[in-house]
Amino acid sequence: MSKLETAVSSLVELFKEYSGKEGKKGQLSSAELKEMLEKELSSPELKEKFNPEEVDTLLKDLDKGKDNLINFREFCRFVTLLARAYYKMEKEAKK
Amino acid sequence: MSKLETAVSSLVELFKEYSGKEGKKGQLSSAELKEMLEKELSSPELKEKFNPEEVDTLLKDLDKGKDNLINFREFCRFVTLLARAYYKMEKEAKK
Repeated sequence: MSKLETAVSSLVELFKEYSGKEGKKGQLSSAELKEMLEKELSSPELKEKFNPEEVDTLLKDLDKGKDNLINFREFCRFVTLLARAYYKMEKEAKK
Repeated sequence: MSKLETAVSSLVELFKEYSGKEGKKGQLSSAELKEMLEKELSSPELKEKFNPEEVDTLLKDLDKGKDNLINFREFCRFVTLLARAYYKMEKEAKK
């Protein structure tokens, strides 16, 4: 599998892993999103920007469907925010 | 590094790798996007949906800035389209 397909398939696996823990499968609850932030973000900068303690603010930003749950499309918006923060961090580290 | 951070960092690396080949660094040209599709997509379904021969149609879809180049934000939209197609394929394969 290519680097791009490996990255995409691991994002799908991650979403399924955390969204399957409780409640509706295929949807991330606030608690599941919080657990993902706690377990999957190790860098201090990313953990500050996507603070597990402020998961409800993040969830509100992502939750276009206004059902208090994060579907896969909304999860991809989170991945985009995370990737853009990571890209910016890398560019600044090179200055 | 966690699974999520590994996926995100490889997306950033991929973008930098392909956008650095010609012209403006940090922006994917049509030729660079086409090369990425050719080299990074192996599954027939994904290759059909994101056909290298129709890269200009894809570029038009992604290119919100209308500068005929794909910046990192627009690349993340491509990754979202790809991830959603992959997620759908996996769900259908389970039926």
